[in-house]
Amino acid sequence: MPTHRFTPTRYHTTIGSHEPVLRIADGDTVVTTTVDAGGGNEHGERITPPGNPMTGPFFVEGAEPGDALAVTIDRLTPARNSGYTWSVVAPNVVDPDFLRALPEARRTDWTIDRTAGTVALAEPPPRLRGLVLPLAPMIGCFGVAPPGGQAISTATSGEHGGNMDYRGFSPGTTAIFPVFVPGALFHLGDGHAIQGDGEIVGTGVETAFEMAVTVRLQKAAGARWPRGEDAEAIFTVGNARPLDQALQHATTEMLRWLAADHDLDATAASHLLGQAVRYDIGNVFDPAYTVVCRIDKRWLA
Amino acid sequence: MPTHRFTPTRYHTTIGSHEPVLRIADGDTVVTTTVDAGGGNEHGERITPPGNPMTGPFFVEGAEPGDALAVTIDRLTPARNSGYTWSVVAPNVVDPDFLRALPEARRTDWTIDRTAGTVALAEPPPRLRGLVLPLAPMIGCFGVAPPGGQAISTATSGEHGGNMDYRGFSPGTTAIFPVFVPGALFHLGDGHAIQGDGEIVGTGVETAFEMAVTVRLQKAAGARWPRGEDAEAIFTVGNARPLDQALQHATTEMLRWLAADHDLDATAASHLLGQAVRYDIGNVFDPAYTVVCRIDKRWLA
Amino acid sequence: MPTHRFTPTRYHTTIGSHEPVLRIADGDTVVTTTVDAGGGNEHGERITPPGNPMTGPFFVEGAEPGDALAVTIDRLTPARNSGYTWSVVAPNVVDPDFLRALPEARRTDWTIDRTAGTVALAEPPPRLRGLVLPLAPMIGCFGVAPPGGQAISTATSGEHGGNMDYRGFSPGTTAIFPVFVPGALFHLGDGHAIQGDGEIVGTGVETAFEMAVTVRLQKAAGARWPRGEDAEAIFTVGNARPLDQALQHATTEMLRWLAADHDLDATAASHLLGQAVRYDIGNVFDPAYTVVCRIDKRWLA
Amino acid sequence: MPTHRFTPTRYHTTIGSHEPVLRIADGDTVVTTTVDAGGGNEHGERITPPGNPMTGPFFVEGAEPGDALAVTIDRLTPARNSGYTWSVVAPNVVDPDFLRALPEARRTDWTIDRTAGTVALAEPPPRLRGLVLPLAPMIGCFGVAPPGGQAISTATSGEHGGNMDYRGFSPGTTAIFPVFVPGALFHLGDGHAIQGDGEIVGTGVETAFEMAVTVRLQKAAGARWPRGEDAEAIFTVGNARPLDQALQHATTEMLRWLAADHDLDATAASHLLGQAVRYDIGNVFDPAYTVVCRIDKRWLA
Repeated sequence: MPTHRFTPTRYHTTIGSHEPVLRIADGDTVVTTTVDAGGGNEHGERITPPGNPMTGPFFVEGAEPGDALAVTIDRLTPARNSGYTWSVVAPNVVDPDFLRALPEARRTDWTIDRTAGTVALAEPPPRLRGLVLPLAPMIGCFGVAPPGGQAISTATSGEHGGNMDYRGFSPGTTAIFPVFVPGALFHLGDGHAIQGDGEIVGTGVETAFEMAVTVRLQKAAGARWPRGEDAEAIFTVGNARPLDQALQHATTEMLRWLAADHDLDATAASHLLGQAVRYDIGNVFDPAYTVVCRIDKRWLA
Repeated sequence: MPTHRFTPTRYHTTIGSHEPVLRIADGDTVVTTTVDAGGGNEHGERITPPGNPMTGPFFVEGAEPGDALAVTIDRLTPARNSGYTWSVVAPNVVDPDFLRALPEARRTDWTIDRTAGTVALAEPPPRLRGLVLPLAPMIGCFGVAPPGGQAISTATSGEHGGNMDYRGFSPGTTAIFPVFVPGALFHLGDGHAIQGDGEIVGTGVETAFEMAVTVRLQKAAGARWPRGEDAEAIFTVGNARPLDQALQHATTEMLRWLAADHDLDATAASHLLGQAVRYDIGNVFDPAYTVVCRIDKRWLA
Repeated sequence: MPTHRFTPTRYHTTIGSHEPVLRIADGDTVVTTTVDAGGGNEHGERITPPGNPMTGPFFVEGAEPGDALAVTIDRLTPARNSGYTWSVVAPNVVDPDFLRALPEARRTDWTIDRTAGTVALAEPPPRLRGLVLPLAPMIGCFGVAPPGGQAISTATSGEHGGNMDYRGFSPGTTAIFPVFVPGALFHLGDGHAIQGDGEIVGTGVETAFEMAVTVRLQKAAGARWPRGEDAEAIFTVGNARPLDQALQHATTEMLRWLAADHDLDATAASHLLGQAVRYDIGNVFDPAYTVVCRIDKRWLA
Repeated sequence: MPTHRFTPTRYHTTIGSHEPVLRIADGDTVVTTTVDAGGGNEHGERITPPGNPMTGPFFVEGAEPGDALAVTIDRLTPARNSGYTWSVVAPNVVDPDFLRALPEARRTDWTIDRTAGTVALAEPPPRLRGLVLPLAPMIGCFGVAPPGGQAISTATSGEHGGNMDYRGFSPGTTAIFPVFVPGALFHLGDGHAIQGDGEIVGTGVETAFEMAVTVRLQKAAGARWPRGEDAEAIFTVGNARPLDQALQHATTEMLRWLAADHDLDATAASHLLGQAVRYDIGNVFDPAYTVVCRIDKRWLA
């Protein structure tokens, strides 16, 4: 299958029915670059306004509303040896009456060692001098054009994907998006060198990337929310506030998927999920929060 | 240290300042029996009204308000070879407009093989005939008497612990409860042979247990919410609705703990948690939901 | 019907199955005194620990689980010419990132003019020197013993009533509580001289009161949540977090009530409520929030 | 000031930076027609796809980001003598475990008597034969183009206004929108002949309208969320899920407004709001819920 090397010249901070930058086919691989959340490139220069600027969109030949677009994350390579975070947990993840105890957040630099595969604070406070975290790259924001002519801010997420900030969107994982418009119009960007659950400081370690992804079409797939698969599990993604509602979307989507593709009716699926489901919290920072519902593939054999 | 073998003769469906059944000391081990959530004993006979009946309370000599009671779960042995679940996911974990697609829940029997260490449906539907899950015992409901003369239903949870339904409360884990009354007044029960995240069918595999726990006092510990430690991580527990608020409680408690006992101020703790925190969803079924905030111990060295 | 004049000598900060202070009959009136939320009496002296201390409980002869206790608020007379509030809106009613803009809350004195029927700040800032509000007395916290041996803090509320902080619980209104224990065990206190929606500073104008209420039994009433009636409307009360869930409880209780007592099936009730319902926010400060679902009595004729 | 009579030929189901249909000036009045939520015109014929189709946008000369656009609702005249509703309360406004008790919703016809000023079911069930409600017209969905190139579905709402479904947006009320793009780009539609709080059946009485509105510019107004004024009160509007967050937005916006334009610092504003604020629930049905924070103008004199 062909591999397209694409260098973006403009970026979008909404996901919508923008002019495609490239037409690709089922099975194709795209290798492209992405800027960091603040619009910074591989040299750390701001080349586009901030707010999770997206590379794309890519038009996938043959994609029609009702299909799903499976995007396998082949490789995520940081494009520079630095990244940044915010320095304090976000106001919405602590008790309201605890907030006064927190200092103001400021941008903080991190060092990315691509050879060693590590991430560390550039100027750690004494207590954190030994803290060296593993490089664990992931895509913060990606997805397809939403229905009805909407152009949805890359600050948030929805049924079309978007700014889900789930650390499980890492190399080897396949993300599956419901297609709402002809060609799907796939956007991607906002790579993180590492990120904890919930993106609770409002960032992962934000940096520019070279990303390689391979797209495959699933005809009439029945997906209403993003889905995915990795080495251990299949998963579904719900995006909403509060977390309760995100969890409802993800769980409902999993029940639909298990019924349609795994021959598990609501009772059988309940027996399985009730005793074996796992939930991950993608983000609890963005306008829509993200909850991921996972079931280990060994229970589906 | 002494080991007390205690056989309960009555049970409580509130956690409160009830008459202690036994006085124990810092470092003591208690081996006792617990009935299942429905009041059923080791023979499956209902010997007390349902609703997570508690064994206890145990009065811990020297425990004073402001201390914490660390309870190490030494052993959880199912007391019979059967358990039960509800058969359908709870109404509150799916999209409201999906609910009509679900059948009514009914009680369903499971077989527990204590020798093989497995759990399976007693009468599986054809599609689930091969499903054999690992025995993964845990405590659904335990805690200490709350402050102010409250007697809190074992259906729910709070700062005192209670019905948290977190699968991480398993053998080897130490749970740490803030002490609110002299003697702490520790209650326990509601064992599950296995349970998925969220307790989304409203039960784990509910059964009677023999439980062995060891208590240790932490003087002036500063805990406001339940905490814990297992082989990999330290963790804090928030209990509230919605999940967002439970997560706020857990995160705030972790920030307090990291500041007081690990010399990490709010900024340093934010750097660490932001890129390395993990959240687990204990339950998303009970009147108060449970979110667990975890940080791997290797990052605290 | 007899009128009982009762002077309390002790108070409770939980609502539970405490020893009754007086036995009264269906139709009786009780005239009694209540301390303010901080335990202050008619002289402003703290005579009992703070936290919405309750007068009572009163045992109502013949009240059985499944009945309802209708409590008509005959008169609420402030017992002194002063009250107090907190000075700043609570952290949970503003955007998390706005909180730093707020000063710390402090206790603030208000003057109550019982002759003029007005309430005003004792030492108003210049901008509020002309602010004179009407005396609008209400009961912040009242209710009946909850089921299952629970003793529920007067900081919060539930199906049994409790700290609902709804300004509609004012003279002329009848509150209706589901009865969970023999004798109902009615508690009352926490009077406010005035309060806005939501109790967003965490208090109304808190003061001691003389309260006169008349109780009537409704046999097998079918109430699961507090209900009420005033000059314009019937109403139902839901207590929970978040507000969404409180609203669900109140709306569901109204649908039950309209079906059982007003011959309106779910569709007919939906037609009516859909175009004519009113919601009030009782409190958005306490551990459980309160939403009130109201329908004008003229539409039920 | 000029009055523009405008007849739309196309409609939008997003609010965004669409091509303006008319340029108007500060102080101008627009008289135009709107279709019902389902795209039906004054004859009940569907002339455009459903989903709150908007008339507009209108470009207001001189409007710049940072300004506010004040839109006085001069007149809302139903354009036909029929409307429709859904027949059953929405799944999200009742307890999840009550949902099975509700029938499926269906479209239901209502009669609008413009001479008598009344609204009634076209074919009432026997129990509702006497139910005649007052004509109480309101705008369900209106607002200005959001920032950043977004095109936001008219199913939902945000800082730009949108589908707020607040019955207070009725003749005599002035709605005030923050301006995000040059010209403001004002859209309107989705008129209701009447609607209860919360839009809990998912509709008001939906019908086509002739609407007359007058626009006025407020330079550098400081509004971040929609605001408004009617005969009794000034108000602010928060749009989000859950209701708690919508209330936070509305309360914060009111505190900002009282500080900037009414010389009330956070403490003075807290004293006033704490004892005199009123909250209305606009909608509790759409993707974003709406809470309105109101303060009577007599307290601001």
